[in-house]
Amino acid sequence: MVYQQIFHQDTRGRGTYEISADVNRIIHDSGVITGFCQVFVHHTSASLTLCENADPSVRQDLESFMARLVIDGDPMFCHTQEGNDDMSAHIRSILTNMDLCIPITNGRGALGTWQGIYLWEHRTRPHRRRISVTVYGE
Amino acid sequence: MVYQQIFHQDTRGRGTYEISADVNRIIHDSGVITGFCQVFVHHTSASLTLCENADPSVRQDLESFMARLVIDGDPMFCHTQEGNDDMSAHIRSILTNMDLCIPITNGRGALGTWQGIYLWEHRTRPHRRRISVTVYGE
Amino acid sequence: MVYQQIFHQDTRGRGTYEISADVNRIIHDSGVITGFCQVFVHHTSASLTLCENADPSVRQDLESFMARLVIDGDPMFCHTQEGNDDMSAHIRSILTNMDLCIPITNGRGALGTWQGIYLWEHRTRPHRRRISVTVYGE
Repeated sequence: MVYQQIFHQDTRGRGTYEISADVNRIIHDSGVITGFCQVFVHHTSASLTLCENADPSVRQDLESFMARLVIDGDPMFCHTQEGNDDMSAHIRSILTNMDLCIPITNGRGALGTWQGIYLWEHRTRPHRRRISVTVYGE
Repeated sequence: MVYQQIFHQDTRGRGTYEISADVNRIIHDSGVITGFCQVFVHHTSASLTLCENADPSVRQDLESFMARLVIDGDPMFCHTQEGNDDMSAHIRSILTNMDLCIPITNGRGALGTWQGIYLWEHRTRPHRRRISVTVYGE
Repeated sequence: MVYQQIFHQDTRGRGTYEISADVNRIIHDSGVITGFCQVFVHHTSASLTLCENADPSVRQDLESFMARLVIDGDPMFCHTQEGNDDMSAHIRSILTNMDLCIPITNGRGALGTWQGIYLWEHRTRPHRRRISVTVYGE
């Protein structure tokens, strides 16, 4: 059984946006009980990540860490036509990932107790991001 | 064909633990000859990685590199309630990954000659980590 | 439906090599219309990444960033028997990934407008890299 759905997530600019409920709704719609789902963001300046979902300070610290590691407007960068956050957004996406796979058990995404699925917007301005979820199983 | 098994790996604290044999045993149990398997760790402070499995100094250097990149007790971090290795463990997990997909060929995980599958414990104290393996194919 | 093919990519040393056309050819050969494909590189010193494929300066900046983050010949490294780019190649691979999953829609890899699939060679000398593509779906 293969089931595929696309949805969009609007962002208010740089930051993490939880999409666990969207993914679980698509898993539910698929009717799959045991299997896995593949989540994919069709962009090169936003990524997907599994992150602790209880304490918001985790995601703040994550953002601070990444901002220090990949410096907006780093003078080393040549690819700057869309602004200081252009090249850094590409690197941040590559260091985290644009694809994610989650097992499905008992008809739900089998996330750990503290795991949430997040879209990570790396551009500073708002964007509309396309995400596809492909579900496999029985 | 979908086949799913969960196992636990006890860790003695921070470091890498090879789980290639566990994954291959589950692939064997599934009876799948051609396909792929998805490995998933249900935590946000441990991750999965493919690493050179011949010379242990590779994993020591990897650990040293990561410890320098993501500093335990970095004064920038707000999320510190569980100690100096709390936030750094989340970041280390996100920079490496909690999910992994491996092709199956001739009934085995088709790893390269020098590839091993490792659970990477990022907390300094011992933990019991839950890992699920979902196998697909024919 | 499961379909698997292996191909090789020759590299001229460190850098990124687009393999989107190779992956799409294999998807086409499989006959799968809706599903996903898993791409895997069977090495620990080369990786796979999705990157912006329009402006080559993105990949130059990416290379510059990674070369500064993971220093060839870092005096911290013990694993140096194959030269200055030995251990750094392992770390670069782990920070990016050896596996990648792409959804298939309408018989093609459903990449975003600016997404290309790249093999990233991390060794400075030329290598022949083995890549397998496993396709699932209907």
